[in-house]
Amino acid sequence: MLQTLYWQNGALHVLDQTRLPDEAVYVPCRDYRDVAEAIRCMRVRGAPAIGAAAAYGIALAALDNKCASREQLMAAVAAAGEELLATRPTAVNLRWAVERVLARLRATAGTVDTLRQAALEEAHRIVDEDIAANKRIGRYGLELVPARARILTHCNAGSLATAGYGTALGVVRAAFAAGNVERVYAGETRPFLQGARLTAWELQQEGIPVTVVTDSMAGYLMARGMVDLVIVGADRIAANGDVANKIGTYSVAVLAQAHNIPFYVAAPLSTIDMQLGCGKEIPIEERHPEEVTHCGGRRVVAEGVATWNPAFDVTPARLITAIITDRGVVYPPYTENLPRLYHEGGA
Amino acid sequence: MLQTLYWQNGALHVLDQTRLPDEAVYVPCRDYRDVAEAIRCMRVRGAPAIGAAAAYGIALAALDNKCASREQLMAAVAAAGEELLATRPTAVNLRWAVERVLARLRATAGTVDTLRQAALEEAHRIVDEDIAANKRIGRYGLELVPARARILTHCNAGSLATAGYGTALGVVRAAFAAGNVERVYAGETRPFLQGARLTAWELQQEGIPVTVVTDSMAGYLMARGMVDLVIVGADRIAANGDVANKIGTYSVAVLAQAHNIPFYVAAPLSTIDMQLGCGKEIPIEERHPEEVTHCGGRRVVAEGVATWNPAFDVTPARLITAIITDRGVVYPPYTENLPRLYHEGGA
Repeated sequence: MLQTLYWQNGALHVLDQTRLPDEAVYVPCRDYRDVAEAIRCMRVRGAPAIGAAAAYGIALAALDNKCASREQLMAAVAAAGEELLATRPTAVNLRWAVERVLARLRATAGTVDTLRQAALEEAHRIVDEDIAANKRIGRYGLELVPARARILTHCNAGSLATAGYGTALGVVRAAFAAGNVERVYAGETRPFLQGARLTAWELQQEGIPVTVVTDSMAGYLMARGMVDLVIVGADRIAANGDVANKIGTYSVAVLAQAHNIPFYVAAPLSTIDMQLGCGKEIPIEERHPEEVTHCGGRRVVAEGVATWNPAFDVTPARLITAIITDRGVVYPPYTENLPRLYHEGGA
Repeated sequence: MLQTLYWQNGALHVLDQTRLPDEAVYVPCRDYRDVAEAIRCMRVRGAPAIGAAAAYGIALAALDNKCASREQLMAAVAAAGEELLATRPTAVNLRWAVERVLARLRATAGTVDTLRQAALEEAHRIVDEDIAANKRIGRYGLELVPARARILTHCNAGSLATAGYGTALGVVRAAFAAGNVERVYAGETRPFLQGARLTAWELQQEGIPVTVVTDSMAGYLMARGMVDLVIVGADRIAANGDVANKIGTYSVAVLAQAHNIPFYVAAPLSTIDMQLGCGKEIPIEERHPEEVTHCGGRRVVAEGVATWNPAFDVTPARLITAIITDRGVVYPPYTENLPRLYHEGGA
């Protein structure tokens, strides 16, 4: 599997996901502004991957030669943090990662060089921890996947959405390795087509059987008895278990409940925002109309017609069978069990 | 509004809907095989429009100079009917229209020229009756649309899907003329994008406010309280009220029920198939994988990945608030009220 991002020769190299599956091209980011731009235009996307990229963005700001003193460096990373946080409002991992690197710098004594080294080290650590967390998510999720499972997923919560291995697709990977996956149905995920372009490609690389369907087919797929469970990722989880994820997730969750199909969310603790009481407080990014008016790069809607393009929706906790985290599987009532898991360190 | 099809100088001229909204081009069909091809590749689509086109296909077969005797003509139209019926299996209006023209010919005495004239006259009559039926559907449906209504529709059940005026969009037109439509939300309707390409264009032509959303946004749109009612068309309605319509309709119906939003189906009697007891018996066409692997003409799914492409799904009668026909609005229980309407001629 190609790496989502890697650090080499003083630059962050980001796999340009807007060009997949046509070509696999890495774009070097030598400045935090390059990272901000890569996040903004979704060359790198997926909550944990955005977090990891932003951590390197802070490291790049710290590494800037113009920072001659601790004060200059701390001002530079704070400014970089603000710009990175403004790129995309919904995924909380972005804030989590930026704050983590900044906290590490505040807690680090020593020279500017020591600070630079600490920033980079923290970014590397976020990557390593994310991969390890996803592997734990995969192991915990494994127990929820029956034999010969036919799994529906939406968007891409795979290796490409994380530092590696994936959250929802981490569970799929673990279950496939255990011989329990018959087929994955990937909703194409208009408007940005992460399911068609990324999930299908990622699973194909590993020989996991995958069928792409349009988002509109989810209900009929379930009605025909072709889906045993749904697993998706998350961009932000509120303290009560409400989940913001890629637009369309909510529709799939309602459909799953109507067909008595389990609906699972897989995400690391860094996606949980304990500061938010419920999903209504999660800011929902609205993106450019062109994503809807165009399809495969071609205009399909007549000029002058209005569009609506929320990038995410909120699935209420009542529709979620369980949340698979890197610390274990959490079941309802989430208002009790999520804080316990988060603060006490055990499911 | 541009005509979906018209007869001129011995040929059927079909508006090529695959090229909308980019350009409005009429393709002449001088032979029934041209009509079959136009239906097959969806230059003309929508159950009533397919029916009307097929009726002209029979007329073109009758007009063929090779038919010198009544026997030759009847054999020619029967063969043309078979080929036309095989183009698309789901919409029952196709069979209804072909059988109607054939029945007219069987019942017509006289010369080959008389038969030719009868076939063409019957096709013209189907067109006139369809437009009149749609206007009645619009008037009956009007009573179901509250003031300042925000209406979600899926696919295109408009003027373009019929001989003119439209079924679901016929109701929208009538309600808009009465000042009761605040906005129409058009689901883009992947894979063929009839909502994005056709419905948005058609409504824009008439100044009816329209917003295009991806199919994945329907649930969130409803959860946000932005939809007052759903109206869609139909490709075939079974005797118990189960409705086959464009893939994705079923998902929208489940979502509407989950949000207590009325879900209406608008269709002429020619869409009701009293020979079928329930929706499970309706044949569902599966179309070419390329419609899913490609988006706006460009490949978006990696080579070798499987797809699924049912062109329709079946919405069970229990999810349908009412069926708006050209003879009145039918409410549940459909098993009682549909046959009564159909056979007795009154709602």
